[in-house]
Amino acid sequence: MSGAPFAQVTIVGLGLLGGSIGHAVQAYMPGVRVVGYDADPDVRAKARALGLAHGIADDAASAALGSDLVVLCVPVGAMGAAAVALAPGISADAVISDVGSSKGSVARALAEALPGHHVIPAHPVAGTERSGPDAGFATLFVNRWCIVTPPENAAPAKVAQLVAFWEALGARVETMDADHHDKVLAVTSHLPHLIAYTIVGTASDLEQVTQSEVIKYSAGGFRDFTRIAASDPTMWRDVFLSNREAVLEMLQRFTEDLTELQKAIRKGDGDTLFDQFTRTRAIRRGIIEMGQDDARPDFGRADHSGKG
Amino acid sequence: MSGAPFAQVTIVGLGLLGGSIGHAVQAYMPGVRVVGYDADPDVRAKARALGLAHGIADDAASAALGSDLVVLCVPVGAMGAAAVALAPGISADAVISDVGSSKGSVARALAEALPGHHVIPAHPVAGTERSGPDAGFATLFVNRWCIVTPPENAAPAKVAQLVAFWEALGARVETMDADHHDKVLAVTSHLPHLIAYTIVGTASDLEQVTQSEVIKYSAGGFRDFTRIAASDPTMWRDVFLSNREAVLEMLQRFTEDLTELQKAIRKGDGDTLFDQFTRTRAIRRGIIEMGQDDARPDFGRADHSGKG
Repeated sequence: MSGAPFAQVTIVGLGLLGGSIGHAVQAYMPGVRVVGYDADPDVRAKARALGLAHGIADDAASAALGSDLVVLCVPVGAMGAAAVALAPGISADAVISDVGSSKGSVARALAEALPGHHVIPAHPVAGTERSGPDAGFATLFVNRWCIVTPPENAAPAKVAQLVAFWEALGARVETMDADHHDKVLAVTSHLPHLIAYTIVGTASDLEQVTQSEVIKYSAGGFRDFTRIAASDPTMWRDVFLSNREAVLEMLQRFTEDLTELQKAIRKGDGDTLFDQFTRTRAIRRGIIEMGQDDARPDFGRADHSGKG
Repeated sequence: MSGAPFAQVTIVGLGLLGGSIGHAVQAYMPGVRVVGYDADPDVRAKARALGLAHGIADDAASAALGSDLVVLCVPVGAMGAAAVALAPGISADAVISDVGSSKGSVARALAEALPGHHVIPAHPVAGTERSGPDAGFATLFVNRWCIVTPPENAAPAKVAQLVAFWEALGARVETMDADHHDKVLAVTSHLPHLIAYTIVGTASDLEQVTQSEVIKYSAGGFRDFTRIAASDPTMWRDVFLSNREAVLEMLQRFTEDLTELQKAIRKGDGDTLFDQFTRTRAIRRGIIEMGQDDARPDFGRADHSGKG
């Protein structure tokens, strides 16, 4: 492999994640060729202008030609169709991977579309609320976790190559099975997004409080939810549809816990509220200690300087 | 008033908010004397070491002596008792205000404890997840809104003085009645905190997903909630108990909306999910345009540099 785990990488779907991989490979893996493709001609034109890859192909199959790694960066509901379009160009020994936020349904869709190929799904747990080809940047994966979910029959050498690829982009890699991934992400990512989308929707529907008041006084906590709720709607629609069972299970537990706090408020039970509010600090400390968030108050937001 | 609206300000309760007012008055209102008091002797010692005020008194009544503004910065459930302790030292023409997150119950508690005094409650919509005397800083209120809720019989000159005080600290001031404040904050602050505390609790109780996995993969959205859920438990217990009705009303609406999304996920209704996820972006845009949040992706968090 002479240094880099792959000689040529094809990125399919040039939004925030795909674009960031394009930047990152060029930044951290000199000598590796990057080919990009997006089904949208406007996105391809932007990608060319932004230099997201060494070459941007105009159809999927030719984008895959000669690459030993193909990474699908499309919404999880579009993985199957994207893989079918790539199939004619994919070489037999190439690794096919992706960046989707749910893994069970993607593994099934890719295995069905590309039988006999080296399909090894993965999920870098990284992103921002932005989307589109100009949202990407090379350091998106630095110090973030990437979860690789190899199927049972995956070739260990191919898995090792994919792991080395993500490590070269700055990520820390963990492997687990797809079902477990989907449960973990249901709680650390999918449920938080569902709740954020809900509360922002609730706030915009009130009669007694105007939308402009909600905006003005959002610094009391609400504004944090609006950032998450500004994420790409297509991507998130697909996540909820593809990880339905795990999301509904976590939602059920959340609702039970919320009902308990609701009851404590109604009854004026301050002790229960205090106990619940106290035990949540340890998790925040753990996240800071593990380097998974900015330790400064308010994420070190710039607005305290008055520039806000 | 010769420039400054007040000659001497007493701050009671020297945590994040009280400490920040102490810093801010010294930074932005030169010539105004600041006296501090906290019921906890350890906090008083720290406040002296940190220079949060020109003088720190050892009992409440003497802290209030000679001040024309007294600001209570204690948890909303402790306002009444704190006011009773101050009463012997408060002069007849002093303005009594506070920084509590709920206003109806505070207005009643202060009016009862200090009959005949100029009670004008207020709420600067500012803060971080930190608490304690060393968490404060002078710019906390810059470009943030402060909501003043004057009772019907408030003297207009006194209200104007309090407004001028907050403007001098960098805040933008709005006045409204206490009941309306409590409805607005129930949605922009109280409900978001309740939900954040709940989801962090839910995540820490799971059997299939370990706490260390929750921490590791928190960058998918969860970590944002842990910041809010690291806020002071006593303060928030009191907020929910004192603004019970408005919080329960907003919670009811949130639960209805969440149930609708839950049903859409269960039924595989992607159109409803997409529509709901699309309409939430406008509010985020409004918040950014109004300067109420950092426009950079991910709040401009430092972690993309790899220092995280």
